[in-house]
Amino acid sequence: MDSTIDQFRACPVGLLTNDCYDNIGTFIDEASEAGHDFVATPIAHPGFRRVLHEDKKDINKDAVNLWRDGPVFDRQDLILQTAACSDIIVGMLAEWLRLDSTDEDIRVNSELALKQELAWASHLGLLSVIFPPLPKGNLANTARSINHAVGSLSFTQIWMQVPTTTKDTEIENEPWKQWNKLRVLTEQNTKIQVALELTENLPADDILEMWLAEPVKALIIPAEIFISNAKGYPVLPRRHQEFAKKVMDKLRPNILVTVPATQIHASATPSAYQEYIRHLNRNLPELDEVNQFATGYQDYLQAPLQPLMDNLDNSTYETFEKDPIKYQQYEEAVYRALLDRAQLKLDVTTMIMVVGAGRGPLVDCCLRAAARSERKIHIYAVEKNPNAFVTLQNKKENEWKDKVELVFADMRRWKPSKKCDILVSELLGSFGDNELSPECLDGAQKFLKDDGISIPANYTSFAAPLASTKLYNEVAAYKDLEHFETPYVVMFQQISELGSSQPLWTFEHPNHKFPTTNDDPINNLHNIRYSQAKFTVQKTMTMHGVAGYFESVLYKDVMISIHPETHSPGMFSWFPIFFPIRTPLQVPQGAQVTLDFWRQTDKKKIWYEWAVTVSKDGEDLAISPIHNVGGRSYWVGL
Amino acid sequence: MDSTIDQFRACPVGLLTNDCYDNIGTFIDEASEAGHDFVATPIAHPGFRRVLHEDKKDINKDAVNLWRDGPVFDRQDLILQTAACSDIIVGMLAEWLRLDSTDEDIRVNSELALKQELAWASHLGLLSVIFPPLPKGNLANTARSINHAVGSLSFTQIWMQVPTTTKDTEIENEPWKQWNKLRVLTEQNTKIQVALELTENLPADDILEMWLAEPVKALIIPAEIFISNAKGYPVLPRRHQEFAKKVMDKLRPNILVTVPATQIHASATPSAYQEYIRHLNRNLPELDEVNQFATGYQDYLQAPLQPLMDNLDNSTYETFEKDPIKYQQYEEAVYRALLDRAQLKLDVTTMIMVVGAGRGPLVDCCLRAAARSERKIHIYAVEKNPNAFVTLQNKKENEWKDKVELVFADMRRWKPSKKCDILVSELLGSFGDNELSPECLDGAQKFLKDDGISIPANYTSFAAPLASTKLYNEVAAYKDLEHFETPYVVMFQQISELGSSQPLWTFEHPNHKFPTTNDDPINNLHNIRYSQAKFTVQKTMTMHGVAGYFESVLYKDVMISIHPETHSPGMFSWFPIFFPIRTPLQVPQGAQVTLDFWRQTDKKKIWYEWAVTVSKDGEDLAISPIHNVGGRSYWVGL
Repeated sequence: MDSTIDQFRACPVGLLTNDCYDNIGTFIDEASEAGHDFVATPIAHPGFRRVLHEDKKDINKDAVNLWRDGPVFDRQDLILQTAACSDIIVGMLAEWLRLDSTDEDIRVNSELALKQELAWASHLGLLSVIFPPLPKGNLANTARSINHAVGSLSFTQIWMQVPTTTKDTEIENEPWKQWNKLRVLTEQNTKIQVALELTENLPADDILEMWLAEPVKALIIPAEIFISNAKGYPVLPRRHQEFAKKVMDKLRPNILVTVPATQIHASATPSAYQEYIRHLNRNLPELDEVNQFATGYQDYLQAPLQPLMDNLDNSTYETFEKDPIKYQQYEEAVYRALLDRAQLKLDVTTMIMVVGAGRGPLVDCCLRAAARSERKIHIYAVEKNPNAFVTLQNKKENEWKDKVELVFADMRRWKPSKKCDILVSELLGSFGDNELSPECLDGAQKFLKDDGISIPANYTSFAAPLASTKLYNEVAAYKDLEHFETPYVVMFQQISELGSSQPLWTFEHPNHKFPTTNDDPINNLHNIRYSQAKFTVQKTMTMHGVAGYFESVLYKDVMISIHPETHSPGMFSWFPIFFPIRTPLQVPQGAQVTLDFWRQTDKKKIWYEWAVTVSKDGEDLAISPIHNVGGRSYWVGL
Repeated sequence: MDSTIDQFRACPVGLLTNDCYDNIGTFIDEASEAGHDFVATPIAHPGFRRVLHEDKKDINKDAVNLWRDGPVFDRQDLILQTAACSDIIVGMLAEWLRLDSTDEDIRVNSELALKQELAWASHLGLLSVIFPPLPKGNLANTARSINHAVGSLSFTQIWMQVPTTTKDTEIENEPWKQWNKLRVLTEQNTKIQVALELTENLPADDILEMWLAEPVKALIIPAEIFISNAKGYPVLPRRHQEFAKKVMDKLRPNILVTVPATQIHASATPSAYQEYIRHLNRNLPELDEVNQFATGYQDYLQAPLQPLMDNLDNSTYETFEKDPIKYQQYEEAVYRALLDRAQLKLDVTTMIMVVGAGRGPLVDCCLRAAARSERKIHIYAVEKNPNAFVTLQNKKENEWKDKVELVFADMRRWKPSKKCDILVSELLGSFGDNELSPECLDGAQKFLKDDGISIPANYTSFAAPLASTKLYNEVAAYKDLEHFETPYVVMFQQISELGSSQPLWTFEHPNHKFPTTNDDPINNLHNIRYSQAKFTVQKTMTMHGVAGYFESVLYKDVMISIHPETHSPGMFSWFPIFFPIRTPLQVPQGAQVTLDFWRQTDKKKIWYEWAVTVSKDGEDLAISPIHNVGGRSYWVGL
């Protein structure tokens, strides 16, 4: 395993205490000696609760107003009294704040106390503070208070502590629902994040995995949920272990452990808990080839390529030519096609045209396939990019010689003197047809004999509803309509799919529907597509957009796919595509999500439009507007 | 009845035909002779349907492609062949368009045919075209096609024909639901409107009245739904009549009647139908005082006044002083208070302070009340606006003389030498406290004796969820966040409330909670309010915002109110207030709408924040973000 990648996934481990140390320096020294990277401690003493004035009988109006007019801490109110070590301290906000009390005075005083604690945390320079678990019931005023308070924080962030389960609730994913409500009310404020607390009982896997789509910045693991192994050392039960590793792998959170007041694991030292966590962290599953390739690109939005309008640069070719799987599959497809073709006409030369030859990798595939099948071939390599064409000329001169003829032309316009047996192309985008393979091959198929073979033979676009706070916020950060109506190529990381993806539409090649008699077709209407896909959602979710994929049959059963359920192992040339939606939609358990997807075209461009409807029991619960009307925000030029 | 106001509500009446006239001029002449203002006629002949190529066996690929490449009408395809009379023609789009066919070719051809008809209508200069009733089932591609097509129309608008009921549906408000889905998918495109068709059976009143919140630009009344009166003339059944009048009154639509091919009403002439409609139109209920005052202001968004920061101008004072009810109620309140006060101390002079005296109408009220009650009073009139203060000086000089002492001061800062018995103010806004009455009276109550009386004694803010495409579109037209987070004063017209409004909070005066010992309070936290109101919605709706009102007790049972259920008859000083929401929310039948409303304050300003949650069976279906966080978009300066 590559150590730099390992390093990249290492999570800081801190020590959390709910105790109120008189001298916080002592605690920090102890935590540090036991090998922790940072600490989490209450900001204020429990005695500070006096400012709520919960006992109305004792109330001294003037004292209340004095504090309300100018909220200032008495020195003894505070555990964190100085900025010493503030770079390794996470502050914990008071547990007794009652921001949704039905008593107006207690509510107002709680908000003032919250602001006072946050102002102090910000003054000390703490990077984060933890807000205690939300109680059941109304949280509207809590949401408003926090949302308002973080507005005045320059860099301090709030981690909302959320347990994986709560004891006294019938609804299993109640904690997620409370968090979800808070973050939608606060418009997914990026300063408000999650400190997920592992509890003794974990919910079902599908509910647990919903957290992988959330901004989990800290994972709290109390000492009490560790069990003793055979030697008396603290370890996590298997499901906790697996989930913790998954969170470390995907989200790289800060991890907070506690140390018990009394010995609860026979051989445990104060450092045993963090040592075990670091052991788990060091032993995350190795990254597969796709993820190694994608390191640093996770959840990063890229504009899709426009290879027809723009000429790809050398490094882009170089990157994609390294794919270990794609060209292996292409070679296999050409090999099989050659065998089939040769059964018909034994000793003739099979004519292959590679359209969009780039720097020549498909030409090499064809030559290898010919050698392996012991068939004679002749290749035309057609390329429109003048820069790539120089490389092709070098390869012909140095390697290919007479076996390959080069043609500098746009395949849609070239008029060859002969027709070919096999037409080979690699024009696919993450959504299949989004780099205009259909339009290019429409133009090229006039080079193909009536019984000729196109590799690929077809490709299908897939879609699935998606939850991802991260991706939504990345798009929302642009603050304009255009970015919400543009698809992005992105390596998914912090996401959760609401169901298995479904096929939308397919393009077949050669396309016998296309009027080949017409040399220069004016309309492109046969490449319009529309599809409606319905998904029944098993768990309550917030939907942020649509994930797109493709699957392609190169020849017979030789396939390439980036669709999760059939993904070609190790093929890294394509990340998925992400279609955002403008407003996150609530999807209750058992609801149906309907995606309407269009591939539209006019004489100059193609584009997608999309809309989402959420319904249940025949009633529409939410309807999005149609996105990217007429290609107003995003299109691909012909 | 004022004839100019009558004129203003007159609706044009047109004649609609589904027949295909060979010479459209003949039809227009006939319609005109029978007294119609305009006509509606199909644009194309039924024969134009050939372009769909529904019979695949007969298909001639080249012919299809020729039309697809360059869609052009044959002259005989068209009923409307020239632009003659185009200013009085509404075009009707083909009924055979199958925009949501599952057959890709028929779908694509339908869209081309739609665009071709619209392009022709636009070329002729028609102001509107009618789209035939939407079929049951999927309409996503219809929505996309229309939305795209209207983008290229410069002034032609599309009226979607929607029947009030459909025969073959179990769901009573299915037509509204189909319309609703289309308009949400098309983002409430203002070029897409409604031509509501009255059907023989009408749905329940509450469903029928939902149309009053929609952009109904035309009302289609087929001859067949008229009945014969005793003399054999065509008249509408009572419910149709009432609804038609309501639509005319509120929405002033174009009205389209048809004339039957054969005599179905014994005494009917071709002009009888339009004559009857005009008769109804002339006999709309008279406008009440509030609506007379509001004429021209319906659904017009006004920024709320900021009387504390800005000085009102003379015409604003003049307008509001004309209210026939408000000052009558104030006089009554002062009268009763004087009687009560005088029972205690018989022959003393009652000291009244009028704070925010403006140009003096409340001073006059007090003087009239004193005369009527035969009590001796002395009045201090306090005003901060230097311009209004000139008028006050004139009135003192010419009328009031020694009975009134004038004080030029901000009531929050003035320090009087004596205290008064009765403190009279009129500082209320449409939402009660939104013009800062609480803060002003906090400052003024130190002039009031401990057992003194404040008029008003209290005021309560009310809220209700609201549907109004019109108001939503007015706000959306600004294309920014600020306008979606600002409340507007607006005379409601095209709206539908989702339930009776509910009280949010109340301010009482004098406010004994307020620390009167503190001369110059720094904080205003006692004027913070938060309330959550829940509404169960009986019919499926799209929610666009919140309606706000107030109710105020001036003294004992003397009230003023703009809350619909208790509105003071004839009082026009206040229109309701409208709080928009950023995204329209679907509210299914039986769902619960929860409004969270805050009145927030800091040392410089007050503002409102609001959020909406839609839930059903304990699941959240939609959660809005909290609007106007920290007063970022709207606030009232202290």
